[in-house]
Amino acid sequence: MPPEPRFDAWRVRTESGLEALLGASGTVPERLLAAMRHASLGGGKRLRPLLVYAAGTFAGADEALLDAPAVAVELVHAYSLVHDDLPAMDDDALRRGRPTVHVAYDEATAILAGDALQTLAFETLARAPLPAATVVALVRSLADASGAAGMCGGQALDIEATGSPQPLAALERMHGAKTGALIRAAVRMGALAAEADIETLARLDRYAAALGLAFQIRDDILDVEGDAAALGKTAGKDAAQAKSTYPALLGLDGARAHLQAQWRSMQALLAADGERAGALLALGRLAVERDR
Amino acid sequence: MPPEPRFDAWRVRTESGLEALLGASGTVPERLLAAMRHASLGGGKRLRPLLVYAAGTFAGADEALLDAPAVAVELVHAYSLVHDDLPAMDDDALRRGRPTVHVAYDEATAILAGDALQTLAFETLARAPLPAATVVALVRSLADASGAAGMCGGQALDIEATGSPQPLAALERMHGAKTGALIRAAVRMGALAAEADIETLARLDRYAAALGLAFQIRDDILDVEGDAAALGKTAGKDAAQAKSTYPALLGLDGARAHLQAQWRSMQALLAADGERAGALLALGRLAVERDR
Repeated sequence: MPPEPRFDAWRVRTESGLEALLGASGTVPERLLAAMRHASLGGGKRLRPLLVYAAGTFAGADEALLDAPAVAVELVHAYSLVHDDLPAMDDDALRRGRPTVHVAYDEATAILAGDALQTLAFETLARAPLPAATVVALVRSLADASGAAGMCGGQALDIEATGSPQPLAALERMHGAKTGALIRAAVRMGALAAEADIETLARLDRYAAALGLAFQIRDDILDVEGDAAALGKTAGKDAAQAKSTYPALLGLDGARAHLQAQWRSMQALLAADGERAGALLALGRLAVERDR
Repeated sequence: MPPEPRFDAWRVRTESGLEALLGASGTVPERLLAAMRHASLGGGKRLRPLLVYAAGTFAGADEALLDAPAVAVELVHAYSLVHDDLPAMDDDALRRGRPTVHVAYDEATAILAGDALQTLAFETLARAPLPAATVVALVRSLADASGAAGMCGGQALDIEATGSPQPLAALERMHGAKTGALIRAAVRMGALAAEADIETLARLDRYAAALGLAFQIRDDILDVEGDAAALGKTAGKDAAQAKSTYPALLGLDGARAHLQAQWRSMQALLAADGERAGALLALGRLAVERDR
């Protein structure tokens, strides 16, 4: 499979969109704005925006209609990393090889920057050049995925579970909420912006569920295999904190087989779509094969 | 002026709305949900929801159309208190005479509960029984008021200013963002839900600006006069932290005169409206005369 040629352009669109939202405004305090920029610009795989563009163009939308949902979902992801890295949470000093926001600035600024990035995500949707009914559906999707029953709830479960091994069902519930929900929302938001029909929405959601699971299994495998240089974050941390992981529960070979099963599931779901599914499959492959 | 008879009913509507959103769900981790309930139920003046109902009914809306914006603005207020109270921010152990969320639970749970309460605010708007275009306008108002150029930015300015006396213009900028913006949004959101005309929106915004300022001047005066029992929080804190306040900048008499000027401004703006303005004026009086 050739690398997907549109990814670079989609990353540029995402970066431009974020830059436009986080330019000097005169209305945002300088230090707060700098922290928000540190948290969201110039780094990251941009997996979630790429999923918005891939799902949206798959369902027939122009890229310009996908910019707002792509940026919004990345803002939520960025805010969650800022808060997850805080001393009271995962206490990480490095992220993508750079100091985390509370290290580069201070804790109060990191808390506020995360808060304001979340707000900006919803503001971005509310100003999107899309029909009002579509905007409302996008706000609902993003909120469902990121709130107490989604990402925030998953992080709460992750913190509770630290130090006590969990069964597989609890691990899947936690990851489904903590990272899976936002990945599924990215795909759904692309499809919603494209006004996709119910059948397409449902099929893309099954693809997104498999991709989210693959992403997490690969993350756990990387934590076992990786080193701090390759990951840009502190590796081996899961084991140090006695967190349950797929390799711990299934063995390393079992985790790899579970990962390949997700990949086959994504391929099967998109088998009839030919070239149109190229970007979605390339993202699936990226989730399965990434080394950071 | 008789006390406004509808306030109790509006507070009950707010409490019921919050209770419905924060009931046992099975999908939200228990401890996170408990912290979110601690932060938002059973306390507070509910000034912002009352402003939504007062402005909305003033502009002709049925109360049922105002429930979602009333709850949404209160959720944003509640989330901001949870985060402002954190050790890295204002480090408060008491709020409304009860332990703050990070004291009753823990810091990580308080950060996540605040995050999830913010998300829930936007989710609530996105599920409101209102026309999609109205929902989009409500999301935009709430986001503008609470993000980096509004409440979050104001809190950042407040933290930066601690320990160094500020001139009056800086103090007004900070309060205008930190507390004024959300108070204005509450009034605007009530009017938007009522599909108010532009003239009414503009007049109500001038009323809200005066009320927001009055609220803050009164807060500063109470900090000088009050004691911990009456306020339910640690009083005299502003002076201890060398924060600029209206009494410090204008003298206590000067601050009281500035407060009365806001009250006269509110009365003048609503002078022609007779009984219809009763709830708005009663809230203005509450902001001016409150002793906690």
